[in-house]
Amino acid sequence: MTHLRPKARLFVEAPLAGGAAVDLSPSQAKYLGAVMRLGPGDAVSLFNGRDGEWLARVAKIAKGQGRLVAERMTRPQSPEPDLWLAFAPVKKTGTDFIVQKATELGASRLLPVFTRHTASERVKTERLAANALEAAEQCERLSLPEVAEPVSLKNLLDSWPGARLLIVADERGGDRPVAEALRTLAEGGGWRQRAFGILTGPEGGFAPGELDLLAGRPFVVRVTLGPRILRAETAALSLLACWQAVLGDWGAAPLPRP
Amino acid sequence: MTHLRPKARLFVEAPLAGGAAVDLSPSQAKYLGAVMRLGPGDAVSLFNGRDGEWLARVAKIAKGQGRLVAERMTRPQSPEPDLWLAFAPVKKTGTDFIVQKATELGASRLLPVFTRHTASERVKTERLAANALEAAEQCERLSLPEVAEPVSLKNLLDSWPGARLLIVADERGGDRPVAEALRTLAEGGGWRQRAFGILTGPEGGFAPGELDLLAGRPFVVRVTLGPRILRAETAALSLLACWQAVLGDWGAAPLPRP
Repeated sequence: MTHLRPKARLFVEAPLAGGAAVDLSPSQAKYLGAVMRLGPGDAVSLFNGRDGEWLARVAKIAKGQGRLVAERMTRPQSPEPDLWLAFAPVKKTGTDFIVQKATELGASRLLPVFTRHTASERVKTERLAANALEAAEQCERLSLPEVAEPVSLKNLLDSWPGARLLIVADERGGDRPVAEALRTLAEGGGWRQRAFGILTGPEGGFAPGELDLLAGRPFVVRVTLGPRILRAETAALSLLACWQAVLGDWGAAPLPRP
Repeated sequence: MTHLRPKARLFVEAPLAGGAAVDLSPSQAKYLGAVMRLGPGDAVSLFNGRDGEWLARVAKIAKGQGRLVAERMTRPQSPEPDLWLAFAPVKKTGTDFIVQKATELGASRLLPVFTRHTASERVKTERLAANALEAAEQCERLSLPEVAEPVSLKNLLDSWPGARLLIVADERGGDRPVAEALRTLAEGGGWRQRAFGILTGPEGGFAPGELDLLAGRPFVVRVTLGPRILRAETAALSLLACWQAVLGDWGAAPLPRP
């Protein structure tokens, strides 16, 4: 019964309830046993995106397998902001970075989007999901973001739910400063609604035809992020942070959630 | 006279004026000649932090040396936000990342701060300065941030200018949500002033004694960045972005600058 405070935090698929047994995947067992050196009785924190966060204890652990038993709930599941991030993938480490940071910053769904100037041709969604999972375990989030299959910008817009506002970072001069646009939304001026998305472009920005595509959609609001040219990942993070600060769960009085 | 639009952008120390000759450093000459393959007559964009941005032409370039001649000003020097970023260095790539992103996000001065939980013992300010320079060249900024020598948190606070507000990201529950705190400042409620600083802690946060140190300073405002635990670099970026959006040059009506 050492380590009263959990030294590890894991996402699991299994239901969590008092006394529930949770079998570990081989990689989780290896991580807890060989890397964290936990043994029977040691505490681990678990979440599954549905049942809150639980304190569990190691029941048994051996080569490549292990079992935990959930003991008590430490945090109840609570509603989280409904914020999608659609982003043009950048070179591999940039995309990893966007996914990790977007998870910390509370994005609920990650949608890779191919645009005219998108550098990378392929996106491995398994890699994105693995990065998101690791970030969620570390940042004490109670859920994982969903990872969508990559689509073209046109397909993204054609299938975009009309009731979900899409805030687009337009580095060559969007319509409005980001703080002003977000504050207007928070004050209910016209577009008050619960579901949001953010779209950030590739290095080099959107192509002219793409800007036309965006301009034609009633759910799009283009915003500016100042006079310097931000890297794609910096723009994504900045917009997520500003959104969380004004409309999301960083605020004192966030919008009501479903 | 090919490449009418500059393919390269460089920071130089030399004064910039019509007809001014600018001698390149060996590494700049190598970059323009061997990497970018520029030759006589090709255009390069230059800035020095004082004289605006200039279109220059290659006059001569050879192994390890070269000369440009400034032709015409393309952007005047303009006032920039006075925002310092004091940050606890994290592992090497994390620190590189903070410096690069803080430069894009317009920090005017970078101050590495050693705290109780700071992982790295050493900071190479030359490395920080080189990262800042590269980021400034890429993001079309007209200045370089200053890079200060590392100090302890106590020394930072003891030498902090009393008229400069220090906004501290406190991940275990600061006084106020960040957007509310920034908006109050923007509206002139009490602390309206022109000079600001941001302080972000190490992984693991500030130690209790350090929080006491911070609480005793009248220029400190502690803010929260939501319910998830952000990595040190994510907190720094998020706070910089929110500051720029509300009080800095991302806004429609920024504070007047000196």
